[in-house]
Amino acid sequence: MDIKLVQNDYGESRVRLFRVMHRGGLHEVKDLTVSGRFEGSFGPAYTAGDNRVILPPDTIKNTVYVLARQYPAEAIEDFAFHLVEHFLTYNPQVSRVTLEITERPWSRIPIGEKGHASAFVGNAGERRAARISATREKTSLESGIQNLHLLKTASASFEGFLRDPYTTVESRSQIIFSAETCAHWSYEFPEPEMPFSTMWHGIRKTLLETFAAHESKSPQNMLYTLGHAVLDNFEAIAEIQLTISEGYCRLVDLKPFGMENENEVFAPAVEPRGVVSGTMRRNGKLV
Amino acid sequence: MDIKLVQNDYGESRVRLFRVMHRGGLHEVKDLTVSGRFEGSFGPAYTAGDNRVILPPDTIKNTVYVLARQYPAEAIEDFAFHLVEHFLTYNPQVSRVTLEITERPWSRIPIGEKGHASAFVGNAGERRAARISATREKTSLESGIQNLHLLKTASASFEGFLRDPYTTVESRSQIIFSAETCAHWSYEFPEPEMPFSTMWHGIRKTLLETFAAHESKSPQNMLYTLGHAVLDNFEAIAEIQLTISEGYCRLVDLKPFGMENENEVFAPAVEPRGVVSGTMRRNGKLV
Amino acid sequence: MDIKLVQNDYGESRVRLFRVMHRGGLHEVKDLTVSGRFEGSFGPAYTAGDNRVILPPDTIKNTVYVLARQYPAEAIEDFAFHLVEHFLTYNPQVSRVTLEITERPWSRIPIGEKGHASAFVGNAGERRAARISATREKTSLESGIQNLHLLKTASASFEGFLRDPYTTVESRSQIIFSAETCAHWSYEFPEPEMPFSTMWHGIRKTLLETFAAHESKSPQNMLYTLGHAVLDNFEAIAEIQLTISEGYCRLVDLKPFGMENENEVFAPAVEPRGVVSGTMRRNGKLV
Amino acid sequence: MDIKLVQNDYGESRVRLFRVMHRGGLHEVKDLTVSGRFEGSFGPAYTAGDNRVILPPDTIKNTVYVLARQYPAEAIEDFAFHLVEHFLTYNPQVSRVTLEITERPWSRIPIGEKGHASAFVGNAGERRAARISATREKTSLESGIQNLHLLKTASASFEGFLRDPYTTVESRSQIIFSAETCAHWSYEFPEPEMPFSTMWHGIRKTLLETFAAHESKSPQNMLYTLGHAVLDNFEAIAEIQLTISEGYCRLVDLKPFGMENENEVFAPAVEPRGVVSGTMRRNGKLV
Repeated sequence: MDIKLVQNDYGESRVRLFRVMHRGGLHEVKDLTVSGRFEGSFGPAYTAGDNRVILPPDTIKNTVYVLARQYPAEAIEDFAFHLVEHFLTYNPQVSRVTLEITERPWSRIPIGEKGHASAFVGNAGERRAARISATREKTSLESGIQNLHLLKTASASFEGFLRDPYTTVESRSQIIFSAETCAHWSYEFPEPEMPFSTMWHGIRKTLLETFAAHESKSPQNMLYTLGHAVLDNFEAIAEIQLTISEGYCRLVDLKPFGMENENEVFAPAVEPRGVVSGTMRRNGKLV
Repeated sequence: MDIKLVQNDYGESRVRLFRVMHRGGLHEVKDLTVSGRFEGSFGPAYTAGDNRVILPPDTIKNTVYVLARQYPAEAIEDFAFHLVEHFLTYNPQVSRVTLEITERPWSRIPIGEKGHASAFVGNAGERRAARISATREKTSLESGIQNLHLLKTASASFEGFLRDPYTTVESRSQIIFSAETCAHWSYEFPEPEMPFSTMWHGIRKTLLETFAAHESKSPQNMLYTLGHAVLDNFEAIAEIQLTISEGYCRLVDLKPFGMENENEVFAPAVEPRGVVSGTMRRNGKLV
Repeated sequence: MDIKLVQNDYGESRVRLFRVMHRGGLHEVKDLTVSGRFEGSFGPAYTAGDNRVILPPDTIKNTVYVLARQYPAEAIEDFAFHLVEHFLTYNPQVSRVTLEITERPWSRIPIGEKGHASAFVGNAGERRAARISATREKTSLESGIQNLHLLKTASASFEGFLRDPYTTVESRSQIIFSAETCAHWSYEFPEPEMPFSTMWHGIRKTLLETFAAHESKSPQNMLYTLGHAVLDNFEAIAEIQLTISEGYCRLVDLKPFGMENENEVFAPAVEPRGVVSGTMRRNGKLV
Repeated sequence: MDIKLVQNDYGESRVRLFRVMHRGGLHEVKDLTVSGRFEGSFGPAYTAGDNRVILPPDTIKNTVYVLARQYPAEAIEDFAFHLVEHFLTYNPQVSRVTLEITERPWSRIPIGEKGHASAFVGNAGERRAARISATREKTSLESGIQNLHLLKTASASFEGFLRDPYTTVESRSQIIFSAETCAHWSYEFPEPEMPFSTMWHGIRKTLLETFAAHESKSPQNMLYTLGHAVLDNFEAIAEIQLTISEGYCRLVDLKPFGMENENEVFAPAVEPRGVVSGTMRRNGKLV
């Protein structure tokens, strides 16, 4: 019997970085969590415990800190480009580097009309995300929004669906649509210094406004409408992948207590959840 | 040997309630988690399995839904008053009712200058909270803000402290002050229909602005300044209890890599955390 | 207006300690999380930012590590005694020290009939806990079991309870009783070097066996029976506080699909949960 | 511009199932969480809100309950086979069904030498898992162990590794090796009624004993040794995928306090973590 290692990678995950840029008294903060992973010809490390080609994962952590000091990248995508370039330049033993960065947003504390220069309030479970995966030949880049919690109390229905003998859910012309949404998109021609942050905020705004305006017939239908709006409005985006995790809000039956309940009182459930995902792409432009 | 039950209570926790109020097409949403607990003479239920005085916890859940339909209370404090009154009125076997309500905030999705009538985006781990505990003689009420994440990158130091042989932390004239803050306050004369929501938003604003403005010498000093500002500005508040859980942000030593790090690159730690708590009160007005 | 600080404490929470004792090749491991808190006359630190009486919380962390090296205490209660004694001896500015320690258990990996000398498998969300709170005059000590997940699929009912107009839950002669249980107990005469670990394991065994054997009429009834068994069997225990958080397991209605469901298929719910707590004490021995 | 939906699926996640099989008075329990997902020609649902081919996700939940009643499958793999067969038989609109099942283990409460017939104690964050993905032509099946927490306090080193200018970690002949391990394996010829549970317990035992016995030179080396041992001992297994997430245990420097620390006192860190993954396969038997 011959046993082979057919895939392997290693790295450092959950490196926490907090960076303050001082622009005079005005501070800009970045609160990031970084994971880096290497692929390469590491066979002897696995099979024989030979560590000579293994750069310790701890070094990935140090490199994150050093490059955060060297390159004051505003966008996490640009920080990811710098990290990938560094690792591929100095590590011939590595054939592919994958970086994942998530950013926790902090807002300036409002003081009158303005935001404070150096005091912030944390908001949202929402995260901005980037993922880059690169060999010396090819780089793929994805940006994303994670944990965007959206909710509609009107203009959402679920009707006319297929029924089988185990279907008990009723057709409803009006539902509470609670949609935890993740969106990840890739670019036609990704390169450093694109206006990543401007695009990110524009895409977020598009998702919110489309979600609000769309008369939803199903999560599938909503997902498609969201993706279409992003691709329509952002030419630099080649593809978008969306996932909607729907939390069910059960209308409480108050009849046993002699009351009507006209879409007013609901019991939200943690479990189960409906999940819909889909990927949309401009036709013909990608292989 | 004689064994006695010296304290007992029971109830239902984590009842989830989502309520939509329709004001024409304008929807107002409340996303609440409610816990209710009873004290009373339940001894035989414990000692002999005699359930005749035990109202099932499930009934607390139903009552939350029924009263959410009957009383369109805007403030969770008022909803708590209704629940307490109901339970004390209809349950002679109960001597004390305690209710805890937390509210998850939802913001209207902005459309131009306005918010959408029925589409929302969830924000923040932040929660609004209320706690009421009442007998037929006396009611105590507390309101609160939980999980308020505050951050200062300037105007915070920690110097001149006591040292013992196991003290290694260095005096620092400039620290990143990351403060997860909880505030709970009680009222001089609590009663239904006080402007609870207006006060809540005012207190939140006071906490944020005071946090931003104060030159912090320690978490203790910050806590006191926050509490003082609230008591100064809100006469209806009798007492405030504050807790600050401080997350440490270690300045990364970049000297091994030939670099300076002038308060720019930090490594935040999950654990351990510093914790400071304190209660402040107007003197002489309370026993 | 005169504002006073009426209560305060501070400290360090979530200090993580992993300790290996080498008994020849046989290793014994302790995986602990420690929180320590000081009360004292710290007023000027709060009101004026005067840190001269503030021992930094970071020093609590260092002290945990130093004392873990000095005192190879097997029981967390004994480690807590050492920490408290240290802090009260060397810190005249401190009037009360409170320590909370939780222990995550690791089991030896079984090799044949025996356990491996230095390889372990982690088990359970279950935790062993101790809490000590001491002034220079008086020490109170509590030990505990947290997150003990117990389950009965027979010999549990809930019948004959009180009904009001909002009660819909049905009387059931057979329920799935899923009980997340916490127990904390204090001692008649707490002092170092009591057989804390032996007692802890004995109490855990008593709780399990009593839970299994008891014909439960309600969570209240189960709680009392558990507490009684512990006080009956462990004379050194003065008082026990128990909490049972009950997860509801709904019998799925399969009639719409033409099937019976005789207590076989259930849907467990995360929320809401029933909660019962009670404190039991030997009569006459305590004030 | 032509926008296309290039991938889509939907389903129901986190369906909770608790099943009791009564074998006389002896109860056997299954505590499962099930997710099911459909792929198919659902285009019009996405693009036009046409729900006529959409079986509601809620029906997946009902089907899980119905089939749990019909088929008293002991192994989650067999339950997965039944679910997949059902969905592919009755849903021509579905081209691929994917099921993921995780099982939370419950142990009988020990009473003397035996386990209690109907009382259980929950253990471990550990989970048993199965994943099946099937079209009408082909079925792939994977079984797994998730969250297996393993720990070695001897026979683990990390030395002789590559260093670059940002490498600061020191070579160590003795480390605490804390390895959160996940293993997923597939079968040469998967089919219903294989001895899945026997294999699962055998593989778990092999992982534990190999972890204990192996002199680890790196997580990579440990991973390979674990995978090799499983493939060596279980002929029915075609491929195994392993991931080790390593939690760092820092040796605390006690020199500032005048003490040695000979691998006794450590500070475990939550973040960052090292991650190693690898897939191993019998050579030549698979394409």
